[in-house]
Amino acid sequence: MEIIKKTKEKCPLVHSITNYVTVNDVANAILACGGSPIMADDINEVEDIENICDSLVINIGTITQRTFESMKVAIEVANKLNHIVVLDPVGCGASKFRTEITKYLIDNYHFDVIKGNISEIKALFSNSNTTKGVDASNFDLVTLDNLDENIKLAKEFSKITNSIIAITGSIDIICDKNKAYYSLNGDQKMSKITGCGCMEAGVIASYISANKDNLLLSTAYAICAFGYSAELALKYAKGTGSLHIGIIDELSNLNDLSLQGGLKIYEK
Amino acid sequence: MEIIKKTKEKCPLVHSITNYVTVNDVANAILACGGSPIMADDINEVEDIENICDSLVINIGTITQRTFESMKVAIEVANKLNHIVVLDPVGCGASKFRTEITKYLIDNYHFDVIKGNISEIKALFSNSNTTKGVDASNFDLVTLDNLDENIKLAKEFSKITNSIIAITGSIDIICDKNKAYYSLNGDQKMSKITGCGCMEAGVIASYISANKDNLLLSTAYAICAFGYSAELALKYAKGTGSLHIGIIDELSNLNDLSLQGGLKIYEK
Amino acid sequence: MEIIKKTKEKCPLVHSITNYVTVNDVANAILACGGSPIMADDINEVEDIENICDSLVINIGTITQRTFESMKVAIEVANKLNHIVVLDPVGCGASKFRTEITKYLIDNYHFDVIKGNISEIKALFSNSNTTKGVDASNFDLVTLDNLDENIKLAKEFSKITNSIIAITGSIDIICDKNKAYYSLNGDQKMSKITGCGCMEAGVIASYISANKDNLLLSTAYAICAFGYSAELALKYAKGTGSLHIGIIDELSNLNDLSLQGGLKIYEK
Repeated sequence: MEIIKKTKEKCPLVHSITNYVTVNDVANAILACGGSPIMADDINEVEDIENICDSLVINIGTITQRTFESMKVAIEVANKLNHIVVLDPVGCGASKFRTEITKYLIDNYHFDVIKGNISEIKALFSNSNTTKGVDASNFDLVTLDNLDENIKLAKEFSKITNSIIAITGSIDIICDKNKAYYSLNGDQKMSKITGCGCMEAGVIASYISANKDNLLLSTAYAICAFGYSAELALKYAKGTGSLHIGIIDELSNLNDLSLQGGLKIYEK
Repeated sequence: MEIIKKTKEKCPLVHSITNYVTVNDVANAILACGGSPIMADDINEVEDIENICDSLVINIGTITQRTFESMKVAIEVANKLNHIVVLDPVGCGASKFRTEITKYLIDNYHFDVIKGNISEIKALFSNSNTTKGVDASNFDLVTLDNLDENIKLAKEFSKITNSIIAITGSIDIICDKNKAYYSLNGDQKMSKITGCGCMEAGVIASYISANKDNLLLSTAYAICAFGYSAELALKYAKGTGSLHIGIIDELSNLNDLSLQGGLKIYEK
Repeated sequence: MEIIKKTKEKCPLVHSITNYVTVNDVANAILACGGSPIMADDINEVEDIENICDSLVINIGTITQRTFESMKVAIEVANKLNHIVVLDPVGCGASKFRTEITKYLIDNYHFDVIKGNISEIKALFSNSNTTKGVDASNFDLVTLDNLDENIKLAKEFSKITNSIIAITGSIDIICDKNKAYYSLNGDQKMSKITGCGCMEAGVIASYISANKDNLLLSTAYAICAFGYSAELALKYAKGTGSLHIGIIDELSNLNDLSLQGGLKIYEK
């Protein structure tokens, strides 16, 4: 596996239409892991921008009617050109607007990966509505006890959408309709930094754009790499501010060998 | 006093309609002090979002006609549901647009706390117009010499608005119409980091949402806690970049006991 | 030369209409180097805001039809009042929309400085279209071998626009129609942090607003100061996250004497 090496060599251009809360972190995470970010959301340019890119990240946080229109144009171009498209349904379930927009996008376009926390995924798939804002509800949390059941749900969602489903949290699930991985990389303290999920979507888009021969494993490795970077940063972080910076530091230093040594990924 | 403990236990959901300059810091400050942030400003979802939240932060920086409309809807919902609402009139006085919008909001809705620098508060209350952009004008600065006079002004503004008034600066004033505190926590170097005031508004909303039995003291403690975090970070910060990160670190580590040891708050 | 001292004494108010990806960094860079930032892009207030400022930074990243209209109003005011105006054509060449807007602005208004990477400048001047998103294309990179040719291009562009042209990269070129400097300050690793160019535009606007007697040299020093700050931060940065923070730290600590010791600037 040379996923990171290939990402750094190819340096895929990742177009993001994303929220303004964590956009700077997303750009820096994409750069740290070997990609090249471009953020553009005006309807007058998203077609041109997507044309020169390798992939597209669609993030629903702080979506507006204006950016929704731009997303549709960008995804249509990306789908036509077989670009990688990653969907991050941030806060899905917290408002009808976000839930309906996201369902519309899933119904009308193809996403290579749909990545969210368990509450967001349930809001999309099972019409559950337990989302606590942008964080997963405690009622939903994936544990070793309910892992099988949640993997089953994710596989079914994958079958319907033909997307890789990535559910992030203390235990991450990454699966397609046939095969599932779970990962124990990362740490609960990541939930005290805004944008970890958004950054992960950027890393996924970068890794899989450069490793199209194995989308599922590359997605899983992206999530492990991000979590492992947090584990390394936690060794010296003084609090959540320096943990935030440390994650970017470690992500920028990570190579395939060091990741291999830190992986906590299991097939299920 | 167990203000911080209660905030971390309750983990209040704080909805912010805020400027895009410091929004990431506001989200991270809310997380660091024990709250859970959600940023949403589209008129199609602010009602839904406010409904599931405990409080609302309205920040005027980079306001547009679009976000003004969303603010009105969100505040109306928040007022109806007795949610905590904090107003941060960033740059008020710097343009007619900001001043008039802010006056409109104060005239038509209720805010639990109005927090600004002295120039912003004067622009709202005494039609003074000495604001230097988003920073307080040197002509206005609160000193021990003019403290009584500024407290009097703040108390009068509180009487008219029925809001707690928090004036931040080298000397902070926190008062309602009857009672005033001033605080010497913090450091002049905080003025060299953008968004300290915006972050303070997020911390205030978090603390007081979880401590509704004592809004005034919780507001004062929020400002002291933020300032004290900066004092602690200054002990090792190399410059303004690491001070910025250090404030978040210290805020995330702060507990009621350590805050108690660092408080520089006085009744007046 | 007391460029930094004068900037810190005058504390010029810098109005930025800039992208939402790096806006926080731009504000913190302006503060670190001695200026005072204000970000405002609503058409209802840009005239008022520009009126109280010393300078204006126009940054094309994430431009929309709405912010384009605001930019025109703000630049017109700034030109009328002889304020410093700096143009940063981020991602120019990556979409027709960005390229055409930027050409329109250059044709209709005066900019004291136009600062971009080599691909952006070529997209504007020679209708080259090799931009790779927001980063310079490898085909375009300025080297010691093609330095003369690129300086000639920059001088010609300066003659037409009556602007100082600043081309940033491993080798920076700063020139007007008569005189050219090049700088070797900085490090390739800066390209792995988003927003270095955006921050540089903010530092340029701050320095030259306070040093109007020598716009060309102040522009050159701003670029050197930023690059030198990165060199200093690289001595201890663990990765791209802490390099990002370290640049702001070093920029905030820099004075004229220490900059003088680190300058790698040459006349050509």
